[in-house]
Amino acid sequence: MTAQELTEQIFKKKSFLCVGLDTDLDRIPTYLLSEKDPVFSFNKAIIDATHEYCVAYKPNIAFYEALGVDGWKSLKKTIDYLHSDYPEIYTIADAKRGDIGNTSRMYAKAFFDDLGFDSVTVAPYMGKDSVEPFLEFNNKHTILLALTSNEGAFDFQTLKTNDEDLYKKVIKTSKEWNNSENLMYVVGATKAEYLADIRKIIPESFLLVPGVGAQGGSLEEVCKYGITKNVGLLVNSSRKIIYASDSSNFAEIAAAKAEAMQVQMAEELEKL
Amino acid sequence: MTAQELTEQIFKKKSFLCVGLDTDLDRIPTYLLSEKDPVFSFNKAIIDATHEYCVAYKPNIAFYEALGVDGWKSLKKTIDYLHSDYPEIYTIADAKRGDIGNTSRMYAKAFFDDLGFDSVTVAPYMGKDSVEPFLEFNNKHTILLALTSNEGAFDFQTLKTNDEDLYKKVIKTSKEWNNSENLMYVVGATKAEYLADIRKIIPESFLLVPGVGAQGGSLEEVCKYGITKNVGLLVNSSRKIIYASDSSNFAEIAAAKAEAMQVQMAEELEKL
Repeated sequence: MTAQELTEQIFKKKSFLCVGLDTDLDRIPTYLLSEKDPVFSFNKAIIDATHEYCVAYKPNIAFYEALGVDGWKSLKKTIDYLHSDYPEIYTIADAKRGDIGNTSRMYAKAFFDDLGFDSVTVAPYMGKDSVEPFLEFNNKHTILLALTSNEGAFDFQTLKTNDEDLYKKVIKTSKEWNNSENLMYVVGATKAEYLADIRKIIPESFLLVPGVGAQGGSLEEVCKYGITKNVGLLVNSSRKIIYASDSSNFAEIAAAKAEAMQVQMAEELEKL
Repeated sequence: MTAQELTEQIFKKKSFLCVGLDTDLDRIPTYLLSEKDPVFSFNKAIIDATHEYCVAYKPNIAFYEALGVDGWKSLKKTIDYLHSDYPEIYTIADAKRGDIGNTSRMYAKAFFDDLGFDSVTVAPYMGKDSVEPFLEFNNKHTILLALTSNEGAFDFQTLKTNDEDLYKKVIKTSKEWNNSENLMYVVGATKAEYLADIRKIIPESFLLVPGVGAQGGSLEEVCKYGITKNVGLLVNSSRKIIYASDSSNFAEIAAAKAEAMQVQMAEELEKL
């Protein structure tokens, strides 16, 4: 999917919500555990209930890997279901990969070709040749970790390198890489005021923004500093939506939470 | 496995070789493709032929992920085979993971608990709380990317932060993390002269050294700057060993390549 198609969907649905599918057998309603594939059953229910309020889903790959072969089957079923029943939805593999060239190429193949995700999150530490293999795919996006939403972000990302924070250097350097038009960036909502600086470097790029909700970030602040005329934002919420309830009507309650965020987003879009 | 047990194995086998299992269906002998699980058949043949010359195997997780569910089955069979037939061998999941705390915990569970690897490679960009969940496991090691062997390493890892290269800052900072005694570090052989500086910061830690062989690093240089009285090195070679031949005797030829490296290593160990 192109960024423009994503933008069109955002204006149509009046939402830039991404729902994170951090699906954990210890947290889903227990009655689902008797199903053949409880992870997929949970995801399907969440997707069916929330799809009208969001434009993207982001399976958190760790949660599937932790289940081994069964987890990969559930992931594949989930992405196949999205492709078949909701082809307009943008999909993000939250994998945070990054390795030497030939290995990054295998990861890119896994997520873009085999699973058919629209985008994948990638860590920048290993530099240009670790990211470019992802960028070679047409109409696929590579979402580079820039400034993440966790406490550890301040260990390295905000270190000064020649009087410039490392995360800014990451963003600036990445603009020079081949096919850099396929880049998006992860920028944590818990650091919304940094967005103004980031927008000076990348005024147009899409940002995937975690940390609204469970991690304490504010949607209003994110929009204040980060929104562009084409929106340029995907705001993710995982636990606050998908684990809002563990009762049999969990999907309805997840939908209500998603809708509440969508309503806030529609208000922000009105201001454009 | 403890670092001490690993060291004992190194002296016993007179080798600190790690064989990388970057198993690629496009590169293994074609006659194996008719087998039920060609990846496992290839790995088993390589392991049976090379195990006496090495102390560790390092499956490169990307290559398994690229095959989806089948790849995870092959990975599981490979690690199970190592555990059952060669329990003295140290195992490394080359996964380069790293995410916010609860997600890192899922990755740690996947590689340490479910698959039973002794260690996993982890990227430092997201800082302390992205690495500590891996460090909580007893007798398991977290191998932190410090200075990698690829060209892109110079994009960020050698940036000066307060007059200190980022990779040095990563190593110094990581020493303060909880359970940091479970840390090892990735240091590329293509930058052997950096090892002297690194040894000033971490005189004892094990280093996983890629880049000898296909990527051009020299074993002698690595030992000159990086070896300790307890060795403290695992030198990896992947493609140069496992793809030395694509004929039906590929495993024998892989063994000869592994043995050649082991002989060089035995010479270096003599010098201690």
